[in-house]
Order: sequence, then C-alpha cells, then structure tokens
Amino acid sequence: MPSKPVLRIGLIGTGFMGKAHVFGFASAPKVFDLPFDIELHTVADVTEEAAARAAADFGFAYSTSDWRSMITHSDIDVIDITAPNALHKEMALAAIAAGKHVYCEKPLAPLSSDAREMAQAAAARGVKTQVGFNYLCNPMLRLAKQMIADGELGQIRGYRGLHAEDYMVDASGTFTFRHDPAGGGALADIGSHALATAEFLLGPITEVMGDCITMIGERPDGKDGTRKVDVDDVGRAFVRFANGAQGSVEGNWIATGRKMQHDFEVYGTEGALHFSQERFNELHFYSNRDPAGRRGFRKIEAAPDHEPYGRFCVAPGHQLGFNDLKAIEVAGYIHAIAGTIEEPFGFAAGLRIQTLVETIQRSSSTRQWISVPA
Amino acid sequence: MPSKPVLRIGLIGTGFMGKAHVFGFASAPKVFDLPFDIELHTVADVTEEAAARAAADFGFAYSTSDWRSMITHSDIDVIDITAPNALHKEMALAAIAAGKHVYCEKPLAPLSSDAREMAQAAAARGVKTQVGFNYLCNPMLRLAKQMIADGELGQIRGYRGLHAEDYMVDASGTFTFRHDPAGGGALADIGSHALATAEFLLGPITEVMGDCITMIGERPDGKDGTRKVDVDDVGRAFVRFANGAQGSVEGNWIATGRKMQHDFEVYGTEGALHFSQERFNELHFYSNRDPAGRRGFRKIEAAPDHEPYGRFCVAPGHQLGFNDLKAIEVAGYIHAIAGTIEEPFGFAAGLRIQTLVETIQRSSSTRQWISVPA
Amino acid sequence: MPSKPVLRIGLIGTGFMGKAHVFGFASAPKVFDLPFDIELHTVADVTEEAAARAAADFGFAYSTSDWRSMITHSDIDVIDITAPNALHKEMALAAIAAGKHVYCEKPLAPLSSDAREMAQAAAARGVKTQVGFNYLCNPMLRLAKQMIADGELGQIRGYRGLHAEDYMVDASGTFTFRHDPAGGGALADIGSHALATAEFLLGPITEVMGDCITMIGERPDGKDGTRKVDVDDVGRAFVRFANGAQGSVEGNWIATGRKMQHDFEVYGTEGALHFSQERFNELHFYSNRDPAGRRGFRKIEAAPDHEPYGRFCVAPGHQLGFNDLKAIEVAGYIHAIAGTIEEPFGFAAGLRIQTLVETIQRSSSTRQWISVPA
Amino acid sequence: MPSKPVLRIGLIGTGFMGKAHVFGFASAPKVFDLPFDIELHTVADVTEEAAARAAADFGFAYSTSDWRSMITHSDIDVIDITAPNALHKEMALAAIAAGKHVYCEKPLAPLSSDAREMAQAAAARGVKTQVGFNYLCNPMLRLAKQMIADGELGQIRGYRGLHAEDYMVDASGTFTFRHDPAGGGALADIGSHALATAEFLLGPITEVMGDCITMIGERPDGKDGTRKVDVDDVGRAFVRFANGAQGSVEGNWIATGRKMQHDFEVYGTEGALHFSQERFNELHFYSNRDPAGRRGFRKIEAAPDHEPYGRFCVAPGHQLGFNDLKAIEVAGYIHAIAGTIEEPFGFAAGLRIQTLVETIQRSSSTRQWISVPA
Repeated sequence: MPSKPVLRIGLIGTGFMGKAHVFGFASAPKVFDLPFDIELHTVADVTEEAAARAAADFGFAYSTSDWRSMITHSDIDVIDITAPNALHKEMALAAIAAGKHVYCEKPLAPLSSDAREMAQAAAARGVKTQVGFNYLCNPMLRLAKQMIADGELGQIRGYRGLHAEDYMVDASGTFTFRHDPAGGGALADIGSHALATAEFLLGPITEVMGDCITMIGERPDGKDGTRKVDVDDVGRAFVRFANGAQGSVEGNWIATGRKMQHDFEVYGTEGALHFSQERFNELHFYSNRDPAGRRGFRKIEAAPDHEPYGRFCVAPGHQLGFNDLKAIEVAGYIHAIAGTIEEPFGFAAGLRIQTLVETIQRSSSTRQWISVPA
Repeated sequence: MPSKPVLRIGLIGTGFMGKAHVFGFASAPKVFDLPFDIELHTVADVTEEAAARAAADFGFAYSTSDWRSMITHSDIDVIDITAPNALHKEMALAAIAAGKHVYCEKPLAPLSSDAREMAQAAAARGVKTQVGFNYLCNPMLRLAKQMIADGELGQIRGYRGLHAEDYMVDASGTFTFRHDPAGGGALADIGSHALATAEFLLGPITEVMGDCITMIGERPDGKDGTRKVDVDDVGRAFVRFANGAQGSVEGNWIATGRKMQHDFEVYGTEGALHFSQERFNELHFYSNRDPAGRRGFRKIEAAPDHEPYGRFCVAPGHQLGFNDLKAIEVAGYIHAIAGTIEEPFGFAAGLRIQTLVETIQRSSSTRQWISVPA
Repeated sequence: MPSKPVLRIGLIGTGFMGKAHVFGFASAPKVFDLPFDIELHTVADVTEEAAARAAADFGFAYSTSDWRSMITHSDIDVIDITAPNALHKEMALAAIAAGKHVYCEKPLAPLSSDAREMAQAAAARGVKTQVGFNYLCNPMLRLAKQMIADGELGQIRGYRGLHAEDYMVDASGTFTFRHDPAGGGALADIGSHALATAEFLLGPITEVMGDCITMIGERPDGKDGTRKVDVDDVGRAFVRFANGAQGSVEGNWIATGRKMQHDFEVYGTEGALHFSQERFNELHFYSNRDPAGRRGFRKIEAAPDHEPYGRFCVAPGHQLGFNDLKAIEVAGYIHAIAGTIEEPFGFAAGLRIQTLVETIQRSSSTRQWISVPA
Repeated sequence: MPSKPVLRIGLIGTGFMGKAHVFGFASAPKVFDLPFDIELHTVADVTEEAAARAAADFGFAYSTSDWRSMITHSDIDVIDITAPNALHKEMALAAIAAGKHVYCEKPLAPLSSDAREMAQAAAARGVKTQVGFNYLCNPMLRLAKQMIADGELGQIRGYRGLHAEDYMVDASGTFTFRHDPAGGGALADIGSHALATAEFLLGPITEVMGDCITMIGERPDGKDGTRKVDVDDVGRAFVRFANGAQGSVEGNWIATGRKMQHDFEVYGTEGALHFSQERFNELHFYSNRDPAGRRGFRKIEAAPDHEPYGRFCVAPGHQLGFNDLKAIEVAGYIHAIAGTIEEPFGFAAGLRIQTLVETIQRSSSTRQWISVPA
C-alpha cells in the first residue's frame, strides 16, 4: 500500500481555537479517507517556553517563538493562524508570499479592506485558504441546505437567524481586543456566524438595514480606570436575499443565559425548518405535504443518512460534538488543497462575511438601508 | 345572602371571537368572585335567523338583526363588539353615545385616528372600555411582568418578541378584509399582540425602525380575477424602550408550520426569561444568582402560585387553555366596570397599539427611524 | 325554535373537583350542541352555610346540607358526586335506587367489590353513569387511539405508561383519607389514570406483575402523634395486553418536581407515539413510512382537525386547558343520557380500573404474576 | 522537557467500536495531559488485507491476521478487544496470561461465569482492565453522581432508567450473534447500559424482578429459512437499591423511533434530575430549595464547570459528541494503567453488569424476585 503524500502543518497560536484545530488535525485522518497524511510540524507561540509546552501537549515535532521563520520554513506546507485577529493579516500575507496554504481562524481580518487584500493575494499566488466557520460543517446544516435546494420547502420566503451568547454580559469584565473598534463587537464576533449560515442556506444577501447598539458603554481597562466602548453588544439587521426572501439576522453577546443560540428558522411555501445549535444534532422539519391532521415539526436526529455523520459513527443518534465539526472543517480544507473539491470557505468567503458585517455597521451608523457590495 | 347587581350584555357578532367571549362570560363567574352577575341579554347578527340561532347556542335571552336598536336598549349595560374591524368604530361610538360600557375585539379600529376618536369619546362619556388582548391575561405573562418589575432579572437590556402563524401562507387563499389597506396586514393583525406584550413587560417603546414586506402580491378576488395586495405579510421592527432596553418585534402570518408562535425573550443584567405561547403554561427563567455549575433556564410550570391560575385549579400543572384566558380578560373588565381596578386594557391602550403599528408602517415606507408619539 | 328538555343537576361536594364539574356544566352547553339544557339545581355540602356559599359561587338555585333528601328530590335528574371517596358507594347506591343518573368522581369506590355492586345496581336500574377520567377526553388521546386503531403504527408491540406527581413528597404532610388502606395509595389515586389511558389506547390488560412500595412509612396524624402508612407511594406493574403487546405502567405521587407527568409511549411495527400531559396539546408521532433521512418524531399540535378541539376554537395551536377536558367529559355524559352515544366511561369502566388496581396490589403483595379478571 | 513513557496498543477488531477506540486514542492525548504517550502499534483483523487497510486508515504501524501472535508480542502493552462478543473471553485470557493490560468492549463476556473467570485472572495477574461503558464518561452523568452524593437531591427515593433504541424493530432483519441465547438480547446489549448508569448513580442494586420478552420469535437465518429467537427484545426489571431507593430499569431494542433513549429520572426528598442521552449535553435539575413560584426543572448545559468538559472546550454550550466520551474513557484507562486513579470500569465492574443482567433474566424465567449476588 503506497503511502500518502504528507501535509506539514505550522500552527500559530495555542489558545482555545489552536487546541480545537489540533483536535481537528488529530481526528480528521481517523474519520475520513484523506488525500494527505498530516504531520504536526511546528507550533509557534510568543515565548519559547509556551511554544515548547504546546508542542509537547499537542504533539508537534518542533516549537518556536518566531512565527516569521516558521512561515518561510521549506518543510512546512500549511500555515494555520489562530493568533489574535489583529495579526491575521500580517501573518497571512507573509505565508501567502512564501507560497504556503493558509488556514485562518475567523474573522479573517478586522476590516474588509484587509480581508480583500488577503483574498486577492491568495488568489494571485494560487494557494488554498480556509477560514474557520465551523458551524457550517454540521451535517444538519448541510441537510438543511440540501432540502432547501431540492425544493422540499417550496419557494423560500422568510428567514430568521441568530447567534446569541452571554460571555460579555458582565459590565465589570475587562476591555479586550474584542472591544476594539477595528473589528470588534458582537456582530463581527458572532453575528458573523449568523450571517454565514444565512448565506450558506439561502444564497446572497443583497440589502441590509442595520441596528448596532452599545449597551455597556465603558469597561475596566485592566488597570485602575475605565475605557470607553464603542462596539456593538447587539448587532442586528433586516435583510433581503437575491432569491426573493426576506428576514432578519442578529448577533448578541449579552444574551443572558444563552451559551450557543445559533438558531435559524426558514419558511417556504411548502415547508419550514427550525434549528438551534443548542441541540445541533437535530433539525426540525415541517411539511405542508404531510396529510392534514398529521402535520408537525418533526425532529430529525443526525444519522448516517446525513453526510458525513456516518464517518464518525455508523449508528444514528450518537451525536457529534463541537470538535467533530472542526474535524469536518479540516477534512474539507485538506481535500481542497488536494484539488478534489472547491475551497469550502476560503478567504474570498471570509471577505464576504466581513463585507456583510461592515455594511450592516455602516447602515446602522447612517440609519439607512444599504445595498451589499457583490 | 344579598344578590349581586346584574350586568347585562349585548353581543354583536357570532363568529370565532364572539363564541370565545361567550365562553368567557360563562366561565368567569364560576371561576372568580365577581362584583356583578352576568346576564347574556341580546345577541345581534346580520340576519334574524343567524341571531336567533346564536341566541339558542350561546344562551342569550333575545336576538336581533338590528344592532343599532340593541345599543340603545335601556336594559343593556355592556356592548360587546366582535363584528368585522371596519365596523368597530361606528358601533363603539354609538354605544358610547348611549352611555354603554364597550368591550371591543382587537384591533380597536383600522386607523389610529379612529381609535383616538373612540378612546376620547369613551373618556369623555366616562364609560369603561376594553380591547381583547387576551394573551396578556396569561398568569405566566403576569409572572414575567412581576419578575421584571421586582428586579429578578436585574436591569433589562434586550428584548426579542414575535407573533408568527401560518394562516396566510397559501397564495391561493382569497383576498379578505384582513388584506385591506385600511388596517390589514400581519403587523396589525397579530404583530399587534407582539407589541402589546412588549410594552406590557418592558413599558413604552420610544422609537422604531420598521420593515413591512408584502410577499404575496396578489390573491384571488373570490370571483374570477385577482386582486392586488398591499398589506404586509411580515412586519417587523427594531425598537427602543424608554427604560433603556433595545430589541426587535415581528408579526408574521406566512410562518409555515407555526400556529401560535407568540414568543419573547428578555435579557437582563442578572437573568433572562423566554416564553412561547406554543407552551403557554410554562415560563423559562435563568438567573445569574444561581450557583455556578447549576445555572440553566428553569421551566416554571403554571401553578396556584401564579395568580389567577389557582382560581381555575388548585393543583399545579393542570394547565389553562385559550378560553380560560378569555375568562380572565372578562373578569378583569367586570372588575373595572365596578371600579375596583383600573381598566386592564381599555380603549386608550388599544389606541396605543394602533399608534405603534402605524408608526412602524410609516417607518417602513419612509425607510427611517421614527419616534413613537406618546 | 323549540326549547330543549332540561337536565337538572344535584351536586354533592364543593371542593376542587366539584368546582371543576361546575366549570364543565357551564361551558359544555356553550361549546357543544347538547340534547339537553343544563340546570344547576341544588348543591349539597356538610353545612348549610358551606352549601349556600357554593350555591352562590357556582350558580345553583338551591342548597342543602342534607344530600339524602336531595337525592330523592323529584326535580333532580342527575346526582353528581364529588364527595370523599369513602362516601361514593352509599351516595351512588341511594341515587341509583332513586332512579337518578349518577356522575361520580374517580375512584368509583375504594374497593372493586363496592364498585361492582355500584355498577350492577346502575345496570339493573337502567340509569346512565359516568366516572371522571377526564384525561381520556383530550383530543390528542382520541387522535392517538384512532391512529392506533387505523394501523398507522402497524402492529402494536410495546407500551410505557406513567402518572407521576409530587404532592405527597413531603414526609411531614399529614395522614389523609388518601393514605387509608381502603382505596388509598398512589396507584389507586393516580396510577388509575395511567391504567385507564393504557386500556383506552391498547385494549384490555390480561396479566400483571405488580410492585407497590411504601417509601414514607409514617406520617403525622394531625394531632401530636404519627400514624403508620401502609399504602403505596409508588405502584407499578409489568403488563400484558390482549392484543399481544407488553409494557409497564406506573403511578407515583412522590415524583419530586413532576406536577402532571401523565405520559405514554407506544411502539408499533411501523410507528410510535409519545405524549406527556405536561404538554397535552401535543402528540408526537414517528412513522417508519416517512422517507429515510427525513424521519423523526413530529410534534402534532391540537387543531380543529382533532375532534372536538374545533368546538372550542376554530384556529389551531390555541390550546385547551384542564377545565376544557371536563367540558368534553360532561358533554359526553349528557349525550349518553340522551342515548345518542354509549356511556364514555360508565361505572362498569370505573369498576374495570378498580379491578386492575387491586390485581396489581395483590400481585405485589403475593409477588406473583396474576391474570386480570375479565 | 523529558519525554513520557510510551504505551503501545494492539487492537483486535476494526468495526464500529474499533474505529471509536481509535478516535479515543487519537484525541485523548490532545485533550488530556496523560502519563503516557500512546503508540498505535498493531491492528489485527481476520484477513491480512483487512488488517492492512485498517492499519493505513487508523494509523497503526503494523497489521496482522494473527491476533494470538500480537498478544504475546513483547512490544505491545495493551490489548484492545473490539472483536465479536463470543471471542472476548479467549482473547482476554490470553492477553492477561501474557501480562498485558486489557481493554475490552462491552459486554465483557456472554456469561457472567466467563466474566468472573476473566476478572479473576486479571486480578491475579495484576494487569489493568477496562470495559467500554462510555455513557458513564459523560460530564453530565458525573455531575449527576456528584449532586446525588453531595445531597443536593436530599435522600434518594426513586429511579427510572431506560435504554431504548429501534435497531431490531424490523422482523425481517437477519438473525445475528446478538440473537444468540448465550449473551444476546436487548437487556444484555443495551439494557446493560441502563443498569450501569443506575448503579453508577445510586450504588448497588440488591434485588430484582425481571420481565424479559421476545416479541419477534423468529428471524431469517440469512439463507432461505428462518431461525427461532429466544432472547429478549425488551428486558425490564423492578429494582431495589442498597441505599433504600426503589425503581425500574428497561432495555428495549424495538422501541420504534428511538435512537438513543438512554434516559433516567432520579427523585430525592429535596430535588430531582432527569436526563436523556438524546440531548446528552444537558442535565435537568429540580430543587425544592428554590423559592416557591420559581421552581422548575432547570436545563443545565455542559460547561467548563463540569469536568472534564473544559478539557475539550473552554466555552460553555459547544457540546461534546459520542467520540469525545470515548476519549474520556481512554484517558481514564490510561491513568489507571499509570496507577494514578482506580480503574474507572474494570473487568470486575463488567462482571457486575453481567451478573445483574443474568439475575434479571433468571428472575424473568422463574417469575420470582431474586436477590442480586454481591
């Protein structure tokens, strides 16, 4: 049996998302039949110690405190960026310039102008890119998309999308990079997921009316003072889709009690779907084609019928977890690098989300409906 | 035991809501200790036959096809209007002029200018009025209001309200009075409930940005042709509350699969509530004051702890139904007539909802944020 | 329009269930087209004062502290017994002897031998009887029964039934008649509902293995001492049905947190149902005949499709309440008195439930499987 | 940084559970700080080809069709058995004899006498063992156990446990090893999970009354004929616990529509829990200590508060999947091998479950209550 070519990973950043990526790299090859073997080559962090510890914990062969040298290392094929948002652009452009494939956590960059530069650089250089919109990897979302595309709901008329959590609910929480006017705020941070899901399911949004509100106007600066906060705690929008549907989308990080309310409801002429990430192994489907007196939202549980669930488990109802979604995300990217499929969510797609976010923000500040640039 | 004074009812209209009112009049005196005995005196419908049949079915002593004569009949104390919306104004003004108390189904009138005239006439004449916003009578909504007022959620920051059903989803359904530009549309018809609940819980809305959309642009005219539809199938708004909270509200009558999605979610600094009329004997409460690791939305089931549930049933969990809400509504009105409480939802309150509806509609058509007139 | 004959009611007992019956008598004629008008004639309680107060509250014309004289009063047609269980037999036999129809709250009698005597007396005298098993009146239970009968689930194989509440969870609660060895205990008190539902849906139970357990062995006697408790706090059984199905049933009054867990799950070769009285306007239906990948329990919401919901409300999803079930129960009984339908749940049916309860109790005490007497 | 000692795995069997174990071995070291590095050394299957393919897919260095030689290979530390149940004993005894640690999928052996022999051999030889009862690894089950132990529910009185699925619902499904009288049947196959959970939470079951029923009496033999089935499709029991609680447990593989109904409900004097594996990142908790009018089952969502959830994800609500439970299981075993903790679920524990299963089966066939051997 001939051995597969090897894809060598250089990871920058060892926090929550760095760890999640490592889980994805570890399990994806066990779950899927991938075109490459994956080698965890080098991990970079701000200090040698932190990097060495991460290498040991995560199973990388090498560690470094110098991400720049790693990026140009000839043994590395993919640069995986899970560093703070503000560094994404510099790192990604350097990696692209070095001819590496780049996998970058969301958001791609604080500003869409930066994201555009990154997407254009990647396209020009011909490297494969990915942004980590993992919720889209859920088999139940793929099922929803397919059902919509196949007409099981009839013509789509309405949509209501949401991503609400409560990690910023405490006004005594310190000012962080997430509160930075360049790229911060609930809409950018998690509303972006709601926007990604909306377009994943229904196609392009063409026009928006935004409403971005700062509810906690200042936060401790981590020293003895406070710092003014300008970014939105809640960002919502009315939206129009190119397919004729209309709806609304909201991002909210002060939604007390909610931990993962990434929800949507889609209404068609013949049926409807509702979904919550709180129970993301379920999709609820209503069909007007069911007989009268027997209609109702049916709870479809994730099963081998719903690709790629069956790669993880041959029996229905056992359920995928969050890290499994990362494995699906990694597998898709690796296939894209091999050229067997399109990039599932490349830098161009990441740019698109940034564009939507900024258009909504601009709409909110001008209090006007705005067409979304294509 | 001295007998109570008698309150004699004259009902106009014998459809769905007429029947629901009769249920309310029948059960309210059994459930509550009311200051009046209720006598179902006369029922009016468009023909003598229909009125006579309704009198027999509903238990009225008399029937008539002439509502005008009934309104001036000296033996009648309360005129109850469940006729089509377009007639509300004429009937109510005549009843007020005759010095009768007036109970009117919602919406009070197609236009807020009409509603204002009605509310002013009632105030000038000193009669007691009521508009049928029955969802507000639910003990769980009263509980929610009390919890908010008592600070159990801390300071309120956000709100998401909805009233969605699917009774207009079929584009082949005939044009009706609900599609009439004067007073029709989803926002006026059921979005009004969502607005009433929002203000019931959080107090006045001060500013709105509306989005009212017609998805089904023409409908059969009931003959051989079609008729253009201008009213909204979906009407939603961003809202600001006087208490500093912000949120959104939606009315939607093409929400496939949804029969009674009168839902809300309230977020405070210390806790949150979520509720659905689909399971309206439950209120879900999250408190940051619960110990770490033990927090979660708790499903509070309607029980004698939650007034006036205990008047219906001494045991928890047995559940109220829709018609029980009407009984509570009736009981509140009768107490208001006796002067023991304020009118729970009089014409002034009905006017307020019309004002909100029209402000949202105007905002939608001008595509501008608008302050809501006080 | 000819007036209907009048059915005059004499009610004994004015507690929780007495009030619920009055609600039923009040609303049934408004909801249904009944063959009789109902007249609330006389109410009996232990003192003249209590009876007079109840008459005023409930709307009876007369009151008495002498139920015996009421029973023989020639103007009364139906004796409605909501007095304590221990008195059911004496009252019912007297009423039957007087030729009255008898409506008796459950349980029919503490012992099946008594219940048998009552059922036989009623049959011999030819009067119409009813026992108050109101949960069976739920349109969703009727739907379930019909779906099973029509083969929508295929051949029925399994059943799991339950009625659990927590009103006896506190060991410091005083000894009451419900703890009396003659007829007391959780199985008799509420397990009886679970048994009634099981046979309503699947037909006769033929064999049982019982397990009745006393968890709280003594309770305060209401004075200064304690009293030994022998009745079951939990009573459950394995069961076999004549149709070949098998399953289990449980009654439990120390089920902390549960207020109305009257639940069942039915498994057939082609489909399944699950139901909870906690959300009794819903029935959940799974069908193997749905296409692969689209199967799931669908939440059917009570609607006019499900008789007699539409008599209460012409729109789906508005929901019935507990007292509405009582109205359906009353209406069924009145039709039975008129002879237009069979008695929905007469004394013979009440006897049947007592027989099941006692067979399970006997099985538990002998620790043996026992065939249920026909 | 000193490297860790290496634990070299030899896996027998490459089906569903083999793959799940590999996932566990792959992700456990990324998630946890383990005392060993894990090396996937050799995988054995029935043919060289199958074994070689599995080695490639799963990442083992070597493959073999001769499991016996693998067992005695000096480079292997742990033998992991996911082969058919009938082979567990032979393989495990051989491995123990060779001084290897043994990880064996459940059930440990078809008969408790075999399981006892295996447990005794392991104890005598001093090797560390594990049986794969993964549901117990769920952080929410650990939370439940801790809450019970800490008295948050008061004194435990009742329990209802269940494991129901529908994978055997089709009577035209072929006879398999799961239908073999030696060790087959629903109770042994999945009821065993319900039993394991019951004792995990409440401690030892002391007495049982079983009810094991064959509903599908014959199945196709895979050739042209049929074969008689003797094992249970449904196996349930009344149970008594040493702590004074009572309850019931059921295993059911013909529960149409159910995919993973591993559910329980625990009732204490002060509180209650309910749980379903269908939504296994939630635990529902009711406390009588909450204030009146605010009580209700609260939905606790899995979060870093609930160990070891936080090893997988630092944010609440993201959810674990089935394979994550396997990672927790693997991690526990590896710690046990290192001697830092007790075996979480060793062969003695596996024997215990077999003993319970057989006692229930014996009780069912003799129709008698039976004490469970210690």
